[in-house]
Amino acid sequence: MDNRPIGVFDSGLGGLTVLKEIIKVLPNENIVYFGDTARVPYGPRSKEAIIKYTFQAINFLMSKNVKAIVIACNTATARSLKEAQSKYNIPIIGVIEAGARTAAYSTKNKIVGVIGTEGTISSKSYNVEIEKLDKDIKIVSKACPLFVPITEEGWANTEVAYLTAKEYLKELLDQGIDSLVLGCTHYPILKRTIGKVVGEEIKLVNPAKETAKDLYDILGKQDILRTVNKDNPIYEYYVSDIPEKFASIGQQFLKRDMDDVKKIEIQKY
Amino acid sequence: MDNRPIGVFDSGLGGLTVLKEIIKVLPNENIVYFGDTARVPYGPRSKEAIIKYTFQAINFLMSKNVKAIVIACNTATARSLKEAQSKYNIPIIGVIEAGARTAAYSTKNKIVGVIGTEGTISSKSYNVEIEKLDKDIKIVSKACPLFVPITEEGWANTEVAYLTAKEYLKELLDQGIDSLVLGCTHYPILKRTIGKVVGEEIKLVNPAKETAKDLYDILGKQDILRTVNKDNPIYEYYVSDIPEKFASIGQQFLKRDMDDVKKIEIQKY
Repeated sequence: MDNRPIGVFDSGLGGLTVLKEIIKVLPNENIVYFGDTARVPYGPRSKEAIIKYTFQAINFLMSKNVKAIVIACNTATARSLKEAQSKYNIPIIGVIEAGARTAAYSTKNKIVGVIGTEGTISSKSYNVEIEKLDKDIKIVSKACPLFVPITEEGWANTEVAYLTAKEYLKELLDQGIDSLVLGCTHYPILKRTIGKVVGEEIKLVNPAKETAKDLYDILGKQDILRTVNKDNPIYEYYVSDIPEKFASIGQQFLKRDMDDVKKIEIQKY
Repeated sequence: MDNRPIGVFDSGLGGLTVLKEIIKVLPNENIVYFGDTARVPYGPRSKEAIIKYTFQAINFLMSKNVKAIVIACNTATARSLKEAQSKYNIPIIGVIEAGARTAAYSTKNKIVGVIGTEGTISSKSYNVEIEKLDKDIKIVSKACPLFVPITEEGWANTEVAYLTAKEYLKELLDQGIDSLVLGCTHYPILKRTIGKVVGEEIKLVNPAKETAKDLYDILGKQDILRTVNKDNPIYEYYVSDIPEKFASIGQQFLKRDMDDVKKIEIQKY
């Protein structure tokens, strides 16, 4: 029985879709979320900058006495997970490995689609992880730069979202994918629209779900779960800057209220 | 008769729409374009960072012996134009003042719309410039975050672009605007689609066009025009990183070939 919170970190608010899945799988855990909203997006930044930002985020979360950390950001996972794991001695997991594993195990025809931001797609992080498990899998990937602003505008279920998804996914459907990795933490918000475009035959892989399951396993193995629900769990939200629409968009992502979002000076950590 | 080139600087490739207007108004001038593609977008960066980046861009352009500089970027103009003008002793102009002036003079009902990125809209730079000229003008502004990725995908004349423009501009039309400032250098690419949504009654103000006219006036007054077209003008393009689609998107923005795009180390300037 370990009451220390879990730390969840993202460059912005996309990580809230990961937090949502963690809460489903681990409903008794206390959680501290940090979104580096002052420095979002990480995509165009150098590897050195991203490692520095990740370390600052982890230092902040460690100051909240967390027992494990989830890097709920594809870019930060791709650029800094290994460095973070070798520097700190608490469990740290990213979002890419679990999603890649699920895709590799679920594909039957060995043709997997991966969608994400330009940064994630050009980094080929999912390709590397999937190929580690099965070299015969063909990966068809596509950057979908409109998907993030569409979800942040709250337009996930509009005609604009549907037509955009149809255009982006055309190529992947033509290539015969049978599984599609939602390789950006914003994309689960578009699940219904993407599902309408690709049909029920194609399995949508949400790395957030798989990451939450991995986290459960790791906490269980180390015997640091908070199993008994005596007091309600506490969720704390911190950001490095408060964008105008943070709480309203965040609540849509999280599907629950975010009563109290605090701003911190992340440079100090 | 002054053969030195004009320097044009943007955080990425949006400034190419400004370059296009400069070439129309000043067809004999040699031009050096620099796009800071390694550090785009400037929107989320601090004022200090943007001033530093602007100074580096100007230092680079000065090394090419330019006779005048256009900061063809709304964010960089808003955050660093004054600092640049007081540091360097060649003419430096931005894109905001000329657009604001044209909007202030062209509105009849004194209700002006301004659209731009989140950064430009929340900076209220156009409001400040328009209010300097006429305090009675009511300004209705709206950030349109989908417009940049739509133009960069080459989707300017698609149904997605039309439906997006309709959604964004609804509010401005309801408020009765008679002039609309395209306050982001990407937006002139969407002129036809935006025109379809707002109708012919509403004047679209393209700050790039007005900036090109201002530049003509300034070069004329200082007697540093390149008036005689003995040799064809030379256009040189430099970027701090070469994104995959730079030349193909750039050519759509510029409506001419970009034969030779060179990468430079901007940190050295």
